Amino acid sequence: MAKEKMVKAITSMEEDFAKWYTDVVLKAELIDYASVKGCMIIRPYGWAIWENIQKIMDGMFKETGHENVSMPMFIPESLLQKEKDHVEGFAPEVAWVTHGGNDELEERMCVRPTSETLFCDHYKNIIHSWRDLPKLYNQWCSVVRWEKTTRPFLRSREFHWQEGHTIHATAEEAQAETIQMLNIYAEFAEKYLAIPVIKGVKTEKERFAGAVDTYTIEAMMHDGKALQSGTSHFFGDGFAKAFGIQYADKDNRLATPFQTSWGVSTRLIGAIIMTHGDDNGLVLPPAIAPIQLIVVPIAAHKEGVTEKAEEVTARLKKICRAKIDNSDNSPGWKFAEYEMKGVPLRLELGPRDIENNQCVLVRRDNGEKDTVSLDELETKVPEMLEAVRDGLYNKALANRTEKTYVAKTMEEMIDIADNKPGFIKAMWCEDRACEEALKEKAGVSSRCMPFEQEQLTDKCICCGKPAKKMVYWGKAY
Amino acid sequence: MAKEKMVKAITSMEEDFAKWYTDVVLKAELIDYASVKGCMIIRPYGWAIWENIQKIMDGMFKETGHENVSMPMFIPESLLQKEKDHVEGFAPEVAWVTHGGNDELEERMCVRPTSETLFCDHYKNIIHSWRDLPKLYNQWCSVVRWEKTTRPFLRSREFHWQEGHTIHATAEEAQAETIQMLNIYAEFAEKYLAIPVIKGVKTEKERFAGAVDTYTIEAMMHDGKALQSGTSHFFGDGFAKAFGIQYADKDNRLATPFQTSWGVSTRLIGAIIMTHGDDNGLVLPPAIAPIQLIVVPIAAHKEGVTEKAEEVTARLKKICRAKIDNSDNSPGWKFAEYEMKGVPLRLELGPRDIENNQCVLVRRDNGEKDTVSLDELETKVPEMLEAVRDGLYNKALANRTEKTYVAKTMEEMIDIADNKPGFIKAMWCEDRACEEALKEKAGVSSRCMPFEQEQLTDKCICCGKPAKKMVYWGKAY
Repeated sequence: MAKEKMVKAITSMEEDFAKWYTDVVLKAELIDYASVKGCMIIRPYGWAIWENIQKIMDGMFKETGHENVSMPMFIPESLLQKEKDHVEGFAPEVAWVTHGGNDELEERMCVRPTSETLFCDHYKNIIHSWRDLPKLYNQWCSVVRWEKTTRPFLRSREFHWQEGHTIHATAEEAQAETIQMLNIYAEFAEKYLAIPVIKGVKTEKERFAGAVDTYTIEAMMHDGKALQSGTSHFFGDGFAKAFGIQYADKDNRLATPFQTSWGVSTRLIGAIIMTHGDDNGLVLPPAIAPIQLIVVPIAAHKEGVTEKAEEVTARLKKICRAKIDNSDNSPGWKFAEYEMKGVPLRLELGPRDIENNQCVLVRRDNGEKDTVSLDELETKVPEMLEAVRDGLYNKALANRTEKTYVAKTMEEMIDIADNKPGFIKAMWCEDRACEEALKEKAGVSSRCMPFEQEQLTDKCICCGKPAKKMVYWGKAY
Repeated sequence: MAKEKMVKAITSMEEDFAKWYTDVVLKAELIDYASVKGCMIIRPYGWAIWENIQKIMDGMFKETGHENVSMPMFIPESLLQKEKDHVEGFAPEVAWVTHGGNDELEERMCVRPTSETLFCDHYKNIIHSWRDLPKLYNQWCSVVRWEKTTRPFLRSREFHWQEGHTIHATAEEAQAETIQMLNIYAEFAEKYLAIPVIKGVKTEKERFAGAVDTYTIEAMMHDGKALQSGTSHFFGDGFAKAFGIQYADKDNRLATPFQTSWGVSTRLIGAIIMTHGDDNGLVLPPAIAPIQLIVVPIAAHKEGVTEKAEEVTARLKKICRAKIDNSDNSPGWKFAEYEMKGVPLRLELGPRDIENNQCVLVRRDNGEKDTVSLDELETKVPEMLEAVRDGLYNKALANRTEKTYVAKTMEEMIDIADNKPGFIKAMWCEDRACEEALKEKAGVSSRCMPFEQEQLTDKCICCGKPAKKMVYWGKAY
């Protein structure tokens, strides 16, 4: 009896973080496994989170002048090959379509792993004059990368994302766009997802295939590992040259435009789970929670309780995503169920509460209970939702602060990397060999060179030559 | 100079309807052709129409209790083959993925042509008890059918749609769902797209592969041809049996559930174009127009005109999707441009209008001009948008009425089919051979057996045996 089953306990985070994660995505009914290995079914509760993310972000994109378009899902092999670095980066992991019905295709095509080549092909068709610039395009879609190892939301063979692709008359304008979008990602992560992020630029080794610069927001998960949560790329004029995109400038001379691309994906749902979740399940930031407040009637068989609870729910629906559970499950079962689903606020209402014209509001993030007058719900509930967001953000920031270390020598680096999962700040000479040595000796990769630089020492932690950049190092998802 | 170019004339509808259609989709910047033949790039203006359609329909789906999910885009060959009729219908036109990166897949998989098999596979996993029923799921996605002949929006190898998939404890409940969704489609088409439709059931020959019954809404295009604009299928328990989906009923006995599916696609954009368009281009129903009203300043160089036009635009943005064009193009160029794009209302404002505290409002559907006091805009504009919708609907209905014929003999049928494009009502014995004979002799297919039946004669138009149903016949896109 599905609805009468007890909510089964999940593995604790301390015991096995990876198992805890899988338990949560399944028990909170975010996903189901699909018949194609490495793909996932996103269930209604998981998809509603993504829809809320999309709605807010799409608004931010449109406010900054971006327009949505839809490109085909297929890329002919010859088109994928036009930009050399790009094809090298993606060709090894694309899914190839070779047949249409019973006929072999003249040229095989891949399912898009990303759409730079499609946008370039289109831009070549529609851009002729400086008056056609800029184009600020975005699309919401799914893409496919045939990865060997997969995990729900974090790395799946098909995943949903948005990919922005813009084209500009000048390099300065394109660079400003790249930074603008990184800032929008950071604002979204911090304000709406309550996830603090570090903004920075990737090292050459970690750059997107074909990019001049890749900017990133890096978040720290509860277990101290890093999750790259959004990237924004400046392409210079490399793609435009490879695809022969040119326009007549104001003096009627042919010029080459500059491009960017930027994306976030359903990985963000993985970030939410691993940043805020606990041993009772999911904990959702209110802005993207499909249910922001669940009403649980207590002693619902008593006269007037269900009616009053429904009246209160109807009032709350006007100010937030409120829902009532008046099934015949026990209150205890319901508490556990909506805790598992990460609903930010629970409202308990029983006969004695009704007598006193009050109810109990319980915060999911810290368990705090508040007895609140029913007359004050319209002011109290929004306040408490805001408090949950702030509580989540501060807890995540404290976790990151606690788990951020400084290494000044290779010994320190190895010791921290071995024993203290987290971010490690250390100086670097910008030599790729040192970056690779750190990976080999300490098992860490460069997360980013943060915009907020510090001079920890004068020397590269690896080779001792003069340091050029402070880098965040760590283990990553 | 893209923005200074004159708007080129398009082929007239009378001269060549097919060419007119292609001219409109390109000139109104709805699409661009893609590098993969038969696929299309939906440009910002076209995609904004689809987003408006999605927003309204998604609201209607959610109001009736449906939830959105996301299935993978791939179907393993063995899964596609589980329901016999279904695989026969779709296998000849699917795109096959055979390789992931450099490795050949153990089992090839197709890109979904429709997702019944994926939903069934998922339902088998998550449905165990009567408490798990019904599931009312929908997804917005794109699907692929490797067609030989393609046309933008009407028949493309990849197209966007929504596909609803529901599963119920009883056949009655599933049948009621099938009809409910058909009614939602009809309401959407008539109220928001201003397209009158005929509701009915498909003949066995025209049924969806695997369905017990397929219901349809059929619209008539300006040229008299039919466009199937939405379908809703009752599956009985055929898929459930093929996939082994069972549940424990209230008496704890194993039972087999019943299913439906229903979908509309970007074909609706083709329907809008061919129902309402004219020789000046696109004509958009206000509910889904990306721009509902365009403000064109007249003699904009005169003092105060631009300022007043912007002030008026700001006011109108609060009540509709209003936009101002204050580029340096001539008013005549702008008139032609926004007529091509089908903007329902144009607001002209010049120095003399401002003196008289008035403006001119021009309807796209019939060219009617109204001089309106600037004080009355907030009431007049919504009224006129509503009038445009009514005007479009009535014009389309008149076209359909005019082009709907009755045939009582085979001679009449052939004569009408040859000379008068439109719908032909005629009686039928329900024998497939007669349906096929009509296709061969008159070149018409059965569009539907309408819910509103009439008894035109007693005999089948083809064989003379007793008639069982009145059918709408016609040529179709």
